[in-house]
Formats: sequence, C-alpha cells, structure tokens
Amino acid sequence: MSSPDAPQLVLVHGPNLNLLGTREPETYGTTTLADIVASVRERAARHGMSVRDVQSNSEGGLVDAIHAARLDCAGIIINPGAYSHTSVALLDALAAVALPVVEVHISNIHRREAFRHHSYVSSIADTVICGAGAQGYDFAVDRFAALLDRPGA
Amino acid sequence: MSSPDAPQLVLVHGPNLNLLGTREPETYGTTTLADIVASVRERAARHGMSVRDVQSNSEGGLVDAIHAARLDCAGIIINPGAYSHTSVALLDALAAVALPVVEVHISNIHRREAFRHHSYVSSIADTVICGAGAQGYDFAVDRFAALLDRPGA
Amino acid sequence: MSSPDAPQLVLVHGPNLNLLGTREPETYGTTTLADIVASVRERAARHGMSVRDVQSNSEGGLVDAIHAARLDCAGIIINPGAYSHTSVALLDALAAVALPVVEVHISNIHRREAFRHHSYVSSIADTVICGAGAQGYDFAVDRFAALLDRPGA
Amino acid sequence: MSSPDAPQLVLVHGPNLNLLGTREPETYGTTTLADIVASVRERAARHGMSVRDVQSNSEGGLVDAIHAARLDCAGIIINPGAYSHTSVALLDALAAVALPVVEVHISNIHRREAFRHHSYVSSIADTVICGAGAQGYDFAVDRFAALLDRPGA
Amino acid sequence: MSSPDAPQLVLVHGPNLNLLGTREPETYGTTTLADIVASVRERAARHGMSVRDVQSNSEGGLVDAIHAARLDCAGIIINPGAYSHTSVALLDALAAVALPVVEVHISNIHRREAFRHHSYVSSIADTVICGAGAQGYDFAVDRFAALLDRPGA
Amino acid sequence: MSSPDAPQLVLVHGPNLNLLGTREPETYGTTTLADIVASVRERAARHGMSVRDVQSNSEGGLVDAIHAARLDCAGIIINPGAYSHTSVALLDALAAVALPVVEVHISNIHRREAFRHHSYVSSIADTVICGAGAQGYDFAVDRFAALLDRPGA
Amino acid sequence: MSSPDAPQLVLVHGPNLNLLGTREPETYGTTTLADIVASVRERAARHGMSVRDVQSNSEGGLVDAIHAARLDCAGIIINPGAYSHTSVALLDALAAVALPVVEVHISNIHRREAFRHHSYVSSIADTVICGAGAQGYDFAVDRFAALLDRPGA
Amino acid sequence: MSSPDAPQLVLVHGPNLNLLGTREPETYGTTTLADIVASVRERAARHGMSVRDVQSNSEGGLVDAIHAARLDCAGIIINPGAYSHTSVALLDALAAVALPVVEVHISNIHRREAFRHHSYVSSIADTVICGAGAQGYDFAVDRFAALLDRPGA
Amino acid sequence: MSSPDAPQLVLVHGPNLNLLGTREPETYGTTTLADIVASVRERAARHGMSVRDVQSNSEGGLVDAIHAARLDCAGIIINPGAYSHTSVALLDALAAVALPVVEVHISNIHRREAFRHHSYVSSIADTVICGAGAQGYDFAVDRFAALLDRPGA
Amino acid sequence: MSSPDAPQLVLVHGPNLNLLGTREPETYGTTTLADIVASVRERAARHGMSVRDVQSNSEGGLVDAIHAARLDCAGIIINPGAYSHTSVALLDALAAVALPVVEVHISNIHRREAFRHHSYVSSIADTVICGAGAQGYDFAVDRFAALLDRPGA
Amino acid sequence: MSSPDAPQLVLVHGPNLNLLGTREPETYGTTTLADIVASVRERAARHGMSVRDVQSNSEGGLVDAIHAARLDCAGIIINPGAYSHTSVALLDALAAVALPVVEVHISNIHRREAFRHHSYVSSIADTVICGAGAQGYDFAVDRFAALLDRPGA
Amino acid sequence: MSSPDAPQLVLVHGPNLNLLGTREPETYGTTTLADIVASVRERAARHGMSVRDVQSNSEGGLVDAIHAARLDCAGIIINPGAYSHTSVALLDALAAVALPVVEVHISNIHRREAFRHHSYVSSIADTVICGAGAQGYDFAVDRFAALLDRPGA
Repeated sequence: MSSPDAPQLVLVHGPNLNLLGTREPETYGTTTLADIVASVRERAARHGMSVRDVQSNSEGGLVDAIHAARLDCAGIIINPGAYSHTSVALLDALAAVALPVVEVHISNIHRREAFRHHSYVSSIADTVICGAGAQGYDFAVDRFAALLDRPGA
Repeated sequence: MSSPDAPQLVLVHGPNLNLLGTREPETYGTTTLADIVASVRERAARHGMSVRDVQSNSEGGLVDAIHAARLDCAGIIINPGAYSHTSVALLDALAAVALPVVEVHISNIHRREAFRHHSYVSSIADTVICGAGAQGYDFAVDRFAALLDRPGA
Repeated sequence: MSSPDAPQLVLVHGPNLNLLGTREPETYGTTTLADIVASVRERAARHGMSVRDVQSNSEGGLVDAIHAARLDCAGIIINPGAYSHTSVALLDALAAVALPVVEVHISNIHRREAFRHHSYVSSIADTVICGAGAQGYDFAVDRFAALLDRPGA
Repeated sequence: MSSPDAPQLVLVHGPNLNLLGTREPETYGTTTLADIVASVRERAARHGMSVRDVQSNSEGGLVDAIHAARLDCAGIIINPGAYSHTSVALLDALAAVALPVVEVHISNIHRREAFRHHSYVSSIADTVICGAGAQGYDFAVDRFAALLDRPGA
Repeated sequence: MSSPDAPQLVLVHGPNLNLLGTREPETYGTTTLADIVASVRERAARHGMSVRDVQSNSEGGLVDAIHAARLDCAGIIINPGAYSHTSVALLDALAAVALPVVEVHISNIHRREAFRHHSYVSSIADTVICGAGAQGYDFAVDRFAALLDRPGA
Repeated sequence: MSSPDAPQLVLVHGPNLNLLGTREPETYGTTTLADIVASVRERAARHGMSVRDVQSNSEGGLVDAIHAARLDCAGIIINPGAYSHTSVALLDALAAVALPVVEVHISNIHRREAFRHHSYVSSIADTVICGAGAQGYDFAVDRFAALLDRPGA
Repeated sequence: MSSPDAPQLVLVHGPNLNLLGTREPETYGTTTLADIVASVRERAARHGMSVRDVQSNSEGGLVDAIHAARLDCAGIIINPGAYSHTSVALLDALAAVALPVVEVHISNIHRREAFRHHSYVSSIADTVICGAGAQGYDFAVDRFAALLDRPGA
Repeated sequence: MSSPDAPQLVLVHGPNLNLLGTREPETYGTTTLADIVASVRERAARHGMSVRDVQSNSEGGLVDAIHAARLDCAGIIINPGAYSHTSVALLDALAAVALPVVEVHISNIHRREAFRHHSYVSSIADTVICGAGAQGYDFAVDRFAALLDRPGA
Repeated sequence: MSSPDAPQLVLVHGPNLNLLGTREPETYGTTTLADIVASVRERAARHGMSVRDVQSNSEGGLVDAIHAARLDCAGIIINPGAYSHTSVALLDALAAVALPVVEVHISNIHRREAFRHHSYVSSIADTVICGAGAQGYDFAVDRFAALLDRPGA
Repeated sequence: MSSPDAPQLVLVHGPNLNLLGTREPETYGTTTLADIVASVRERAARHGMSVRDVQSNSEGGLVDAIHAARLDCAGIIINPGAYSHTSVALLDALAAVALPVVEVHISNIHRREAFRHHSYVSSIADTVICGAGAQGYDFAVDRFAALLDRPGA
Repeated sequence: MSSPDAPQLVLVHGPNLNLLGTREPETYGTTTLADIVASVRERAARHGMSVRDVQSNSEGGLVDAIHAARLDCAGIIINPGAYSHTSVALLDALAAVALPVVEVHISNIHRREAFRHHSYVSSIADTVICGAGAQGYDFAVDRFAALLDRPGA
Repeated sequence: MSSPDAPQLVLVHGPNLNLLGTREPETYGTTTLADIVASVRERAARHGMSVRDVQSNSEGGLVDAIHAARLDCAGIIINPGAYSHTSVALLDALAAVALPVVEVHISNIHRREAFRHHSYVSSIADTVICGAGAQGYDFAVDRFAALLDRPGA
C-alpha cells in the first residue's frame, strides 16, 4: 500500500512481455522486464511515488489487476501488449476504475502490421507513448509526476 | 447440485461485472452483483428452480463454467460483458454444451459504441434481453420457467 | 383513452405481423396476433394499465400511430418487423414522441440473415427483447410496470 | 376469384410504374401499364389462367396485395420497382404467402446505378427476368404455365 | 390549380415533419409546419407564384404527391425528412416528373449521424439547402423565382 | 452459316455446363445440354432462325466463340456459368462484337452464395433471365424473335 | 476593417475558383469571381454589412485567411472548392475561430463524382447551400443578415 | 523433459477441445482428446521423439504453455481452437519462442462460418493442416520427423 | 483405368507448377513436378492405389481433368496454384464430380500476399494442407488411404 | 531464337486484342495488331533486337508463352488486356521467369470502370505505360533498349 | 513564351522532387531534377518544342502553375509526386485548363504502398508512364511530339 | 546553424498550431506556441542541444522546412496537426531527409473523430507521443538526448 503522502502507481504488463529482453531484440531491445520495473520504481521514487507491478499473460488477470488498483493507486501505466488490439474487457476495466492511464508501447505499433495500429486502450488512455523503447516508461512516470503535482516534476 | 425435481440454472457473469453497482451508475445502476444473484435465486425458487452462479474476468474461466453446466444444469443465463463482442471461444463452449441460453445485457448495447453492437453469443442464444436493467434477469428466469414448463410460469 | 389512474400503453406491430400464427410456424410459432393482443391487455390490466393496439403494413401508418401515442400513452411496445432494418422514419417518430420504448422481436433476429442484425429502432429503444417468442410481450408489459411504478411490478 | 379450373395469378406493380409509358421512354419504352395488364391477361387466358392486377406506390399497399394473394392465387408476378432495392417487408410478405414468384424488371437493372443491382425480392423469387422490356411479362406468364402445368405451356 | 400567369410550386414534406415546432426544438426550432407553409405562400405570392402543400408520413403518399405535380406545377420544394436517406422510390418519382427540385433540410444533416449524410434526393435535386432553419424555404422560393424568371427575383 | 433470310444465333455455354443433367439435379434439374440445344434449335426454327452452339470449359475458348459470332450471327444467347462472376475477358469480348446478348442462368443465382450475385456479363447483356430452368432458353429465343422482328414473335 | 455598426463578413474562395466563368461553363456558368464578389458586397451593403474577400489556391493560404477573420469578422462565407473533400486543416481552422460559417457550392456536389459527396467543412458549417449557382451567395448573405439580426433581413 | 537424443514436441490444445469426442460429433468425430494425445505420443515415439501435452481454455494459459516450450522443446503442434481467430497474443507468443509450428484443425475451417476462415496462427505457422480429422495430428508428427531429420521420417 | 481392386487417384496441378524446382527455390524448394509425381505414385502403390497425373496452365484444362475423374477415380489431390484464388469454375467442377478432395499447397499461403489467403477450392475440399513442402503430397495420399480404408493406412 | 548478339523480346497480347483496329475505335483506335507487331519489330531492329509475338485469348496460353520466354528472351512486353485485372496466374508466371517486364495498355485504364484500375501485372512490372495508344509499344521497345544497353538507345 | 511555331510544354514537378538524385537512390536513381529538365528541354528542342519548368512543394503553387499554362502552353508533363494520391485540387486545375496531360512517375507506384496505387491525376491524364526512370520524361516528350504532330515524331 | 558540438533539432508545427493557447482550451490547454518553443529551447539547452523552430499553415511550407533540416539538424520534432491525417507529402519529405523523427500531439488523437486516428507521419516516426499536453515536447527533447547520447540524458 502507498504511504499517506506517496501516491502509488500500478505498472501493468500484458502478454509475452515477461519475455522482454529475451525475444526479438531487433524489435524490443535487450532490456528485461525486471530492468524496466526497477527503473520505473527508481524514477517514481525520485518524485516521491511508489510503484506496484503486475505482469500477466491472461486477459482476466489484467482485468483483476486493474480492478485492484482502484483501492490504493493514483494512476495506471499499462503496456497491454497484444491485448491492446483485441480486448474490450481491458477497456471496460480501465473505464470502471476511472484512474488516469498512460499507455506505453516499446516499439512504434504504427510501423508494424495493420492489425496492430488500433488499440482499444488508446480510446480511454490519457496519454499514449509508442516507440520510445524503455525510455517510454520514464516519460510515463514523469507524466504522472506532472498530473499528480509531485515534487521534481 | 440440483435436487431431482428442481432443475438448476447457471448464472454466468463476464468481466468487470463484479464491480456492478460500484461503477458508472449512469450506465449500469446501483444494484450490485450480489443483489442480482440473490434476486435471481429467489425468483427461480418461486418456480421451483435452483441457481448456481459464477463470475469470472477470464475468458477461459467462463468457458470452464459453461462446460461444468453440462453435468447438472438445465439452462444458462449469461451476461458475457465485454467478451460478448470478442469471444468465439464462448460461442463454441455454448454450442458444445447444447443447453438453452438466455443472454442478458443490463444496458442496451445497441445505443453504445459500434463495437458493442455485435455479440457472438447472440448468434447462439435462444433469447436476448438488453437494456431492461436488473429486471432483465427476472425475464431470463421467467423464460426458463416457460421453457422448462415449471409451475408459476 | 386511458383512465386518469390507468396509464395506457400502445402496442404497435409492423408489416406482415397480421399473419402471425399462420405463416412460417417454425420461425414464429402458432400464436396469432389477436392472441398476443389479448394476452398483453390482460397482463397490463393486472398492473392497472390499459393497452391500445395498432398493426400496419405501412411505414407511414406506423409513424402515424406513434405520433398519436403522444397524446394519451405512457409508453410504446413495438415489434417493427421488417421496418426495424430499413426505417429511419420510425426512428425519428419514436425520437419525436419521446416516450419510453420497448422493442420486441419474437424470433432472435441475430440468428437470421445478416441484414436483420441491425435495427434502427434499437438505437432509440430503452429495452430490446429478442427470441422470447410471445413471452417477450409479457416481459415488455412487466418492464413498463416497473418503469411506471405500477402495483404488482 | 379464380374459377375452379382457372388458376389465378396476381400481377403486382410497385412505385412509379403507374407512369409507365409516360416517363423516361429511353429507359422504359412507351408501353403503358394498362397495355401490360391487358397483354398479360390475354396471354394468361390462352393458358387458361386469370389475372388480378394491383399497382401501388405504397410499400404497405404492396404487402397487403401480396397477403391477399394467399387466398385465391396460384402465383405472383411482381415488378417491385424501387422497393426491390430497399424493402425487407416485401421479402417477408413473399416468404409468408409461400407462393411461386416471378420477378420482372423492364430494364436491365444491372446496367444502371450500383444501388439498383441488389434486389431483396430476387433472394426469394423463383425466376428473375430483367431487361426484356414488356416482353418480360410474357415470359413470366409462360413460366407459370409451365410451373402450373397448364395447357399450351 | 395555378392561374395562367402564376406558376404553381408544390411544397412537399416527408415523415414526422407534421410535428415541427413541437418536437426536439434544440434541433428543429419552434416554428410549426403551418408557419412554414404560410411563409412560403406569402413569399411565393410576392414573386407571383402560388403554392400547393402536402405532408405525408407515407413514402407512397409522397410518391403520389410528386406524380400529381406533373400536371400543374412548375417546380418542387421538398423536405423529404427521413426518406431522404432510404427511398429510391422518391428518387424515381422525382426523375419521372422531370421538374426542377429544391431540397431543403432545416438542420444541417452533415452534422448528425452518419446515416443521415447521404440523401437519394440530393442525387437528383437541382439545389440543396441544409441547416438554414426555416429560412431555407425562403431561399427555395427565391431559387424558383430566379429559375422561372419571375418578377422580384 | 445462316441462310440469307434465316438469322443465326450462337448459343454459348460456359464451364461445367457439359455436365448438365448429370450433376446436382436439385440445383440444375435433369435436362442435359444436348436436350437444351435441341430445344433451342427447334424453337428458333419456328421463328425462322438457325442456331450454332458452343460449349467450352475454357475462358479463352469462349472468347474465341464470341469473336466468331461477329461474322455470321445476329445475336448471342450465353450461359457463362462460373465465368459470369470472374471474367472481364468475356465482358470485353461481348462488347467488341457489339451484338445483342441474352444471358441465361438455369438457377436463380441471387439465391446462391454471395459471390454468384454479381455477373460481369449482366453489365453488358440486354436481357438477363435467371431461375427459369431450361425454359429460360425458350425465353431467350423468343426475345431474339422480337428483337429481330421475326415471324411468330 | 468593419465600421462599428457594420459587421464584416469574409468571403473565402478555394482552389481554381479564380478561373470561375472561364472554365467548364456547363458546370459552373459564366459568372466570374469578380462578379460574385461585387454582388455579395452589394447585397451585404443593403443589410448594412461589409465584406472582405480572399481567394487562394493554397490550403495554407486559406487557413491564414480564416485565422485573420477572428479579429474583425462576424461570419464566414466559404466555397472551399476541392479542399472541401480533403482538408482537415480547413475544418480545424474553422473550429478554432468559432465564427458562424455558411458553405456554398455553385454546383450540386452530390450529383458529381463520389469523392465530391463528402465535405469536411460541412461537418462544421451552420448552413450548406449547393447547386444554387451564383444565387447561393445571395442566400449566404441573407442567412447572415438573419443570424446577425440586420435590417432588411 | 526430453532425453538427450529424443527431441520433445509440445502438443497444445485450445478452448473447448477438452470436450472432443463428446460434442458435435458430426463436426469433430468421436475421438477424444485423450485418444489423440495417446496416438500422437505413440507416433512420435516411432520417430524417437517425445511429446508433452497441454490443454487450456484460457488464452493466457496457452501463452504460458508456449513460453515453456522454449526451454525443452524442438517444435509445437497446436490446435488453437477458437483462439485461432481472435488471439494476437498467441501469435506473439509463437513468434517469441521462435520454434517451428504445425497448426492443426480437425475440421476444415474454410467450410464453416466466415469468421473462422482467418487464423492469426496461420500467419506464423510453418505448416497448416485442416479437415483431416484426427489424422491431421499424424501428419503433424510426420512433418516434425522430417523437419528434425528423425529416423523413420 | 484403375484395376478392380486398386482405386485410382487423380493428381491435378495448376498453373506454373510445371516450373516447380526451377523457380523461386526459396519459396518452393528444388523438388521438380516429376519428382512429386513419382513420389506420389510410389506412396499410393504402397497403399494399393494408382495415380493419374495432370498439369495444366489453363483453367479450362483443369476443369476438363476434374470432369474426367468422375469416370474412373476415387479421389482428387489438387494443387490449384494461382487458380485457387480466382476460379469459381474449379469450385463448380469439384462440386459437380462429387469426389473427395484434398487440396495441397507447397508453401503456406497464409504467410504470403493477402490475395492468396482465400481459396475457392478450400470451400469444397475435405482436407487442406499448406506449407508442408513436397511432404504435403504424402499426407494427401495417406489421407486417401484412410478415407478409402486401404491396407497400410 | 535470337542471334548471339541480338537479344530477343517477346511481345505478348492478351484476350480480345486480336480484334484491335476492328472494335471500339473510339477507345482503341484503328491500328491493327498486325500493324503493332510490325512496328515493334522494326523499332526493335533499329536497336539490334529481335521480337517474337504471341496473342492468346486463353489465360493458360499466355502463361505458356511467358514460360517459353525463359529460354531465349531478354525481356517481355505485355498487354495483358482483361487478364490484367483478374489473373494471379499471369503474375506468378512473370515472377517465375524473372525477366524484365514492360506492361502496355493502349487506353488509360484509370479513366475507365473501377474494376479496370487494378492490374495484378503492374505489381510485378518494371514499367507501366497506359494511354499512349500504339505509341506505347515504341516506348516499351525504347525502354528495353535502355535496360539492355543497346545501340541507338 | 513559346515562339509562334514552337509549341511550349510545361514540365511540372510536385513535392520533394527538388531532392531528386539526392534521396533514396535505390528508389529514384541518382539523376537530379536539373538533369531531367535539361534532358527534357533538349529532346523537346529536337521536335521544335520549348519547355517551361516548375517545381513546387506547395499544392497551391502547382495549381497556379497549371493555371498559367492555359495562356501559352500546348501541353503539360506532370510528375505530381505525393499530391497524386491526395489532391482533388490538382485534378480540378487540370480539368479547368483543358490541355493534354502526360503523367510521369519515375518509380512504379503500383509496386509501393497501397496508398500510392491511386492517383487523382490519372483519372484526367491522357497518358500515364510509371517506372521508366528518367526515361519516362523522354517518352512524355515524344508523346507530345506525336500528339502535336511535330517533326521528328 | 548548430555549433560543432551542439546538435541542432528542428521543431516543426503544422496548421492552426499558431493559435495554440487561444483556441479550444478544453482540448489544447492555454499554453501558447511561444511558450512551447521557449520551453523546448531551454530543455534542449540543458542537454547541450539547440533548436530551430518553424510553424506553417502550408503543407508545402512544412515540406520545405523538413528539407532544410537535412543540412544542419540532427533530428526532427514534429506536431503535424491536421496534415498528420492527409499528407503523403510530409511522409515523403521525412523519408527523404532520413533523420530521426519524434511526432508529438498535444491531445490524444485516438479519443477524437475517427479520421484523426491515422497519421501518415506515424508510419515513419521513430517515436509517437499523444495526449501528454505540452509535456509531450519535453519527452521529445529527452528522447533525442538519449538517441544522440547527450549529457543529462
């Protein structure tokens, strides 16, 4: 749980992202998911925010994680992976919890296959960042620092 | 398990419906899922029917629940939520168990975004009820009372 | 005309429904339109509501009937038949009178030809009931009993 | 009503066909509707069949005419005019009466605007004749002579 | 009938426009159909033209009215309402009578639902005026004054 | 070659029609291609016309046959079979020879799979006859008798 | 600049309209752009309004002209020509200045090629006038007289 | 785990396939999933290969199973069932593990509803086998025997 | 002709497959058509079946070959090449002869251009095998061994 | 066969082009195919190249001609006529022989019906020339002179 | 300005073509725009024609250049670059000046992204040449020499 | 021009963005373009980078600005505004200069009208940032700091 004055973010990763850094490095680079989580935590801490992280290959598991955020989180950073393109359930879950959302894609999905150009999550996200590599997560943290009016923002 | 002379229905709820009554009341009202389950049980009892209920945010979990109904249920009342629009697996599960199906949506999905207008489940359901609020479940129970020729139908 | 304390509903049937019970029984059953009207009247009476009924094969005739409802009706139960799929005029008429609308289809239109899956009326109806056979009209009456806060609802 | 041994056909004309012979002769020729009706009657008589004719600019009027054919006609010759392209109600009416149907278009609708290429009626008609001018009605009568096994067929 | 030197226009209104001024004022204003007819008559008179008016909720009724105009009218002012979007029969009727046509929509149909953006009538009209409110009829009269070379044009 | 005063028609059959009467009788009946050719010859003779017949399973063979008709034929009766739906070359060949064309389909192609609803040949044919069975060829001959002003027409 | 009590309109013409009266007279007539500007000025003066006019073949030039109107104009009369169909930038410029807009097309764009049927500008315009020739500009001026409550309106 | 010289395959079954042999036998036959697994194991053994099998109704469960194959499998035989048509996540998982893939469907999906004609998995599979019934799995094993250059291939 | 107890298969190859092994080896490998025919014959012989083979670059030639199979073949193995995607005539020919069909594509057509993803032949084939290289023909032979209940199947 | 130092081109003409100069002169002019062949030969000779010519109305015949070019030609000039729009087999044949291709259309296909705007051949051709009349073939020869670095290029 | 007996052509280049020879040489080669202009001038001179050249990155600038050609040019050679695919204004400008048009693309646009396959300019051009590299301009000059009946054509 | 060791970025703004901070503040906020330019300069300076800025309402002006960047810039930050959705010319210009590109949209274009969801620029950009307000430019600068390996990144 977040401390009284340290808003907590939840960092949600969708399917296959557990393999980050080990697959298709020409598309996704060599940074692992653990590297990203650590980096996000550290950057959030600089702004006085804490981070809970979740990765699931299951659409339902991601819905559960988003629901849980209602109780103790101030915002959601989500890389929905392949579910971006197919999941109305994620969209509904994000609408239900009514928290600010920053969507991150490591690669630029608009340069890939046509079925990756549409994201249901983008239709509810506040901010969308594609193709900035792992640095996209830094931007997501900084965006929340600004939105939540944190020191160092 | 249903008693010998009390046919059992399974009441299946899809993703995000666990939050009913707590989210977007202008769309879904303030009735909770527990309220609905209780109300369905009571109305079914009046017709001498029992009810098992399941809610899952997971598509696979819903498939499992539908499979389980083959053994001891006489019909399925399902609000598939967001999976209505994306899940061929639910459609196949319902086809496989070959039980009568009543599909319920609390809101009228035809007045919402275009991607909510099509439901795979509707292409196999016997009856579809949209936009009757929680009362739609009453209609579903009554439909089964008629289909199963129960007293009070 | 409705009595002071007995709200009146109008029951509107579209094209070809005058033949109900005499055509394609495998799709529509053997209940006649007269049977349905009688059943609706009786069920409405139990809730202290009266019913006026109209059937027309003419789109304009249906528009007229809907207009007339403005003066003395509290709600509209409509089975628009084939005009569901082609009539913007019905949609506009329903919008103009601004009464609550329950749309009923005896068969499940989503299991029929693709051109029957879309209904203009559904985009304005409060409640849509498909594939409950003649029982769908019972549900429509009960829905109005609830909406109008009638005894027995 | 047809005599015991003289099957009756109904000849149904849709909107604007009352103006035949007076409008756009380069598309429709100079034969009037009265000419066509007389010619059809005469040719039918040669096969020992009688003909009732109806023209209406109203979709509902045409539905009514088709319904009426159930009682005393052995087949329907229909030129649905513009309603070919827009009327599901006509399609349903023809399905409901379950009589053989020959659809006639004086011009070849496949050489006109794209929205005239699809006819709902064609999806239920037994025979479709386009672009044979007024002679198309002769073919329709002869088709019924063959279908009904009339002398001279 | 028009006098020898006073050309007559027919003013045709389609479905639901009988309710003008009583429905959805935020879209259509508070002017009634009678107000419009009176205003059109008066403005036409200033140009030495007379006006016959027709309103029908029936597609066939409108086709009939257009046919009738062939005999004694010099032009057609039409607000086809909802039939703009669905009626090939109106298009054919207008083509058949071969009179100049000015199409008027009170609201700007291009700012409403997508299915209202296409008008079959526009594909045959000489002039189309949308979103000028009741003043659109004034423009229609003035357009005919110019087309018919009337005094005061 | 046709005699001086006996115009010749060419009767062209496309792919698979050599099997007529031996395949899928529920769709195509039991009449063989030889039966049809004989019947067409006899009916044409009654109008003082002769008939040359060609059947080919090859698109190019059909193009050749149509070209040949330029020299000695007054019209083309064609059942293009499956090439109706896919062959621009047939369309061009028919346009090039500039003879009147009557297109015949034994079954009603509009009641079959969607890819059979469109015929390139229909966009150039003068007359199209579908679903009249083998009688459709009689109509085609009679149509040419009328077009060519033959005795007995 | 407009005088204190003489509201100014800006009359904006898009690409190729500088050639008006010199090109394709069967489509656009023989009136030149200078004729139109003079006529609009005169008619506006009668209502106590002044007019500034701009023509540009450049999309960016038109955006600039619209921006400039923010400072000293009470409304925009625009014939966007070909940019109607392709320019989101014009739409955004009109939205940004938030002035009333009357869109004029000399010809009826709905009777021309399909790609001319959609206008981005129509989705923001208050009033759209097509196919009234040069008179359409008169109507535009009169519309502003009414909207701005000018004498003589 | 596979022995040093016995490459292991993973046999992955998607949703509803646990019911094989018990549902819709006219489509899927009477062979059970256990029968298939046993048969695949036996045939693989003849080629000196071992088999691990997984069935899951959960998309996420299937993604997990595919990930696991990275560690100890030489290839994937997958019948993705309904997820074939909707799951980008499976496609990404298969791309991530970069093993050869043989996709098997018991029925010929191209003869079923249109929404079953497209498989995301087919766009990454090396080999696709549809409609060979349970024998399709034999072919899949033999394909791997050839790909992996096994004895008996 | 096949011997009394040796059912004959016909192996049909479509356009450009005569060049197999000589063109685009990265897509099709280096095996020639003669190699494939020899291999199919040998494998069929093991199951006591004989094989007739045909290759044609002509759609009509392929239709002829399929027709011929009616007389003396028990099944068809077909690689329709490019005609898979464009030929309704092949589909009709296969439907007409009503023999079991196994469709083989050497490469996986679902990984190639979009216009290669749809095969008319697949909508009638019993079994479809893509992307198994020349081994796909072995599978086709084995499928027939099973279907025809041959020794060694 | 081409001489050692005189590269040979093959000039391929598709369906209906044998009628060139005799059909639809307003579209194709009066030059015959023989004229074109002679002109191409002469121009090629000036560059020291020889020409073999083929015309076929058969798709398969054209595929054969393209295959034959592999052996002794340095390039292909092709006017595929109607097969441009429908033939994947031609595309595959051209890909298989891997020679440079110049596609010529006498008329500008982009000004004709929509189904003529797409050419499968264009997706493999090096150069495409439309609407230059018979001169287009001169350009094709000159293009090969440049590509093959011939004298006079 | 062109001399009395030396017709002038205008050579129009669209956006980004000023960079020719400096960008993406694998697509566009190394010839610069200046090289092309010089080459076109020289070749035109051989036919007794002069050339004015324009390059603009602005759509409006290109419209202006086309307008200017009305006064002193006999034809237009245009490479519209990216505006080919998006500019209705260019199409209208070319229609307005009513001069013959030859459209040149250095690369074959039909082998590039789908959005480059359609050119508005092609729907008005007389001749279209794609993928002939800089030689395409030679062909354009020669085409005008023929059209204008110049010496050396 | 950038100093030897201070890489220069160009900051490009498209149409209507000159009005930033003065229009539709609910969508775009109150920050002006000058504010953004100043902020970008300052942040770039912290990383030892300089910034040149350009705003144009003209597509051609933007193409020119991108071309100019080739000479002295290390990267492009671009907010293409409305041209994102319509300009192939911008896409080509960016491809031609071959510099890294970061695309910024102040609002989340995926939550706006459907025609704003596609950006041609996104198909070439390295990084895309939407809906981060003016902070999106900070992220763009930081992205370049990382890409160019600047101090403070």
